[in-house]
Amino acid sequence: MQGSFSLRVDSSVVSLIVQKYGGSSVADAASIKRVARRIVDTKKAGHDVVVVVSAMGDSTDELLDLAEQVSPLPPARELDMLLTAGERISMALLAMAISDLGAEARSYTGSQAGLITDSAHGAARIIDVTPGRIRSALEEGAIPIVAGFQGVAHDTKDITTLGRGGSDTTAVALAAALDASVCEIYTDVDGVFSADPRVVPAARQVPFITYEEMLELAAVGAKVLHLRCVEYARRFDMPIHVRSSFSQREGTFVMSPQAIATAIDEGRAMEQPIISGVAADVNDAKITVVGVADKPGQAAAIFKALAGAGINVDMIVQNVSAASTGRTDVTFTCPQGSATPAMKALDSQREAIGFESLRVDDQIAKVSLVGAGMRSHPGVSATFFEALADASINVEMISTSEIRISVVTRVDDAQRAVRALHTAFGLDADGEAVVYGGSGR
Amino acid sequence: MQGSFSLRVDSSVVSLIVQKYGGSSVADAASIKRVARRIVDTKKAGHDVVVVVSAMGDSTDELLDLAEQVSPLPPARELDMLLTAGERISMALLAMAISDLGAEARSYTGSQAGLITDSAHGAARIIDVTPGRIRSALEEGAIPIVAGFQGVAHDTKDITTLGRGGSDTTAVALAAALDASVCEIYTDVDGVFSADPRVVPAARQVPFITYEEMLELAAVGAKVLHLRCVEYARRFDMPIHVRSSFSQREGTFVMSPQAIATAIDEGRAMEQPIISGVAADVNDAKITVVGVADKPGQAAAIFKALAGAGINVDMIVQNVSAASTGRTDVTFTCPQGSATPAMKALDSQREAIGFESLRVDDQIAKVSLVGAGMRSHPGVSATFFEALADASINVEMISTSEIRISVVTRVDDAQRAVRALHTAFGLDADGEAVVYGGSGR
Repeated sequence: MQGSFSLRVDSSVVSLIVQKYGGSSVADAASIKRVARRIVDTKKAGHDVVVVVSAMGDSTDELLDLAEQVSPLPPARELDMLLTAGERISMALLAMAISDLGAEARSYTGSQAGLITDSAHGAARIIDVTPGRIRSALEEGAIPIVAGFQGVAHDTKDITTLGRGGSDTTAVALAAALDASVCEIYTDVDGVFSADPRVVPAARQVPFITYEEMLELAAVGAKVLHLRCVEYARRFDMPIHVRSSFSQREGTFVMSPQAIATAIDEGRAMEQPIISGVAADVNDAKITVVGVADKPGQAAAIFKALAGAGINVDMIVQNVSAASTGRTDVTFTCPQGSATPAMKALDSQREAIGFESLRVDDQIAKVSLVGAGMRSHPGVSATFFEALADASINVEMISTSEIRISVVTRVDDAQRAVRALHTAFGLDADGEAVVYGGSGR
Repeated sequence: MQGSFSLRVDSSVVSLIVQKYGGSSVADAASIKRVARRIVDTKKAGHDVVVVVSAMGDSTDELLDLAEQVSPLPPARELDMLLTAGERISMALLAMAISDLGAEARSYTGSQAGLITDSAHGAARIIDVTPGRIRSALEEGAIPIVAGFQGVAHDTKDITTLGRGGSDTTAVALAAALDASVCEIYTDVDGVFSADPRVVPAARQVPFITYEEMLELAAVGAKVLHLRCVEYARRFDMPIHVRSSFSQREGTFVMSPQAIATAIDEGRAMEQPIISGVAADVNDAKITVVGVADKPGQAAAIFKALAGAGINVDMIVQNVSAASTGRTDVTFTCPQGSATPAMKALDSQREAIGFESLRVDDQIAKVSLVGAGMRSHPGVSATFFEALADASINVEMISTSEIRISVVTRVDDAQRAVRALHTAFGLDADGEAVVYGGSGR
């Protein structure tokens, strides 16, 4: 793929494009017809097309409501069987709408399309993709419509779902298995932005972003693409084109640094900016373990207890020990939903760890700056902290990667922090971004 | 099966019961919970249970509405994919409700349950049943819940639906393949009645009826069981127990004459009555081909043209030729929906057949009397026509089988005819029958 990828696909060669449409793009009959037209236009332009589709609008929530009415704790296997009815409906309707436009479309369940997973119902991982039926359909000139979000377990042969962001992952996995030239992810925004346009009206759409930057952004709260789908794309070097199904504008290409460099060399892109975006995540909590004995192995005991309870710990800070007491405080962040289990896990090990008390604080935000250019441009940190200081925003914790700086602030300061950083790094655009609302799965 | 079948199943031996619940029995969460309780009670009574379930209430109509919104003429393959989402939802919910009662249930699509069909989308025929996964689930003590109405095509591997009465056929086919002791079909009436209780309030519930009688009744308009399901049961000698999911009463057993004779011998049933029931079908039309040349081969030309257009012809009458003209009239009945295509098919062959004109009449009813006892009791015909004459009902056409007499009357006379026959053959009961309304698929 690498090197041979071209943004302007050569129209003399038939290329394969995988298109994924989220729930908001197929929310009702009118939307389905609009998407069908778009798919048929792509086919008429000379491309082979494989479509991945999510369940219609709110239908997943309606199915979950039904489940709740019959059982407070439904078995995960049956919940997957139930939820996969959602894509079955949307994909059949989309195939009908395409047929109505004179093209041939055939819908396939995840199982029929060869999405083989493990048997972790509700959060299954793809372990193989065997799209024999999809290839046959393409050879016969048809447009395959594949149910997103679902697969079949390799051992039990039961129906599985992939969990959050599952349809995007289905699309990228199919694109990789079919050696597509690009995987287009249609959503209700125009692409990836330098910040959330609802927070920063002057946020710019980013034309190119590397897999690494996108992973960092996804990890720190940007909602456009799910972490797993970007990981999958990076592993197989499958370019993703994130764009809106409500407009014809080009969106954001997520691809390798080499592919972006080629695009820049060929004059199809401007110089890659130092900073790609600013994001805030308000879904974390901060837990402080107070009065830990300042001796070797105590931190290990804390994080072993947390790992045993399946808690994903993000940022960690250990205070300097007060010489008078020989004790220190250890502070870490984790998702808000994990705060209670984390407290329980630590409390059950209070004797072994040897701490005085626990403090939890969910009024925090994690504000992050992401950009591959940080590697080669010194002074980014200085600008970062100067901007926050000028805005009188207090920094409680700091963590960095090669291409990211994250800080914890009060949650009430988060939006001001994002705006201050966006301006300080020259990301503000002239016009305002457009947001359509809603979200798919 | 034959001979070993016992109505009161021996509770010291684990027997397998297949239970089928129609759409009205699983119309909402409360109904699903009620049915779940009934299934768990059967399991607790010591039986193995396999459940076949239809889509919830009106959900099939809602899916058809959606299809109509995106395409006036959706491809049959995609319509099947769409409609099978209905059972997927009901079966998963039913499995959840059963789990909630502490029993283990696992839902299976038609494909997973081994319902192998031809590829006639919308009206597929079962060509094999390979219920390996259902057997394994039973061996592990689970209750398998199977989607009715659907299967998978043996050649294309596409999802198919069985058409009208499909879920009943699924249940009987699975019961036969698993060598079940009985197939219980739960519906919204108490069983098979001697006449439609809405027409004849004194209609009696029939405790036993042979496959042959049930086939004749199904063919002449009785709606309780579909023709295909009874044909399947007769072929495999699988006893069907038609009963209400709204009460605990025993319903009607549909089985072989031998099994009924055994039940009578053992004192578990009264003498089999001569007549099982009276039915009226108001969905036929009568077409008259006027002025056909009275020479050999003309009738053949008519029915060849109709067969070529796929028209199912039912009753046929050829008038005596008028000596003066050398021409005759040929009259036949067919479903009202086939009347227009039948007229077109005949008109296109007007030259070849050589007739003067066509007359269509949809204001007719077919009134039928069914009873295996007719074979051995002379005088049934005399009583039949005397009763209609006494009620001043004009008979337009007559057709008979070994165990059935059918006549065509004016549609307005149909209900009076049914009541007159019901009384004349001593079928009136003391109390009135109970009807619950609604219908499944």
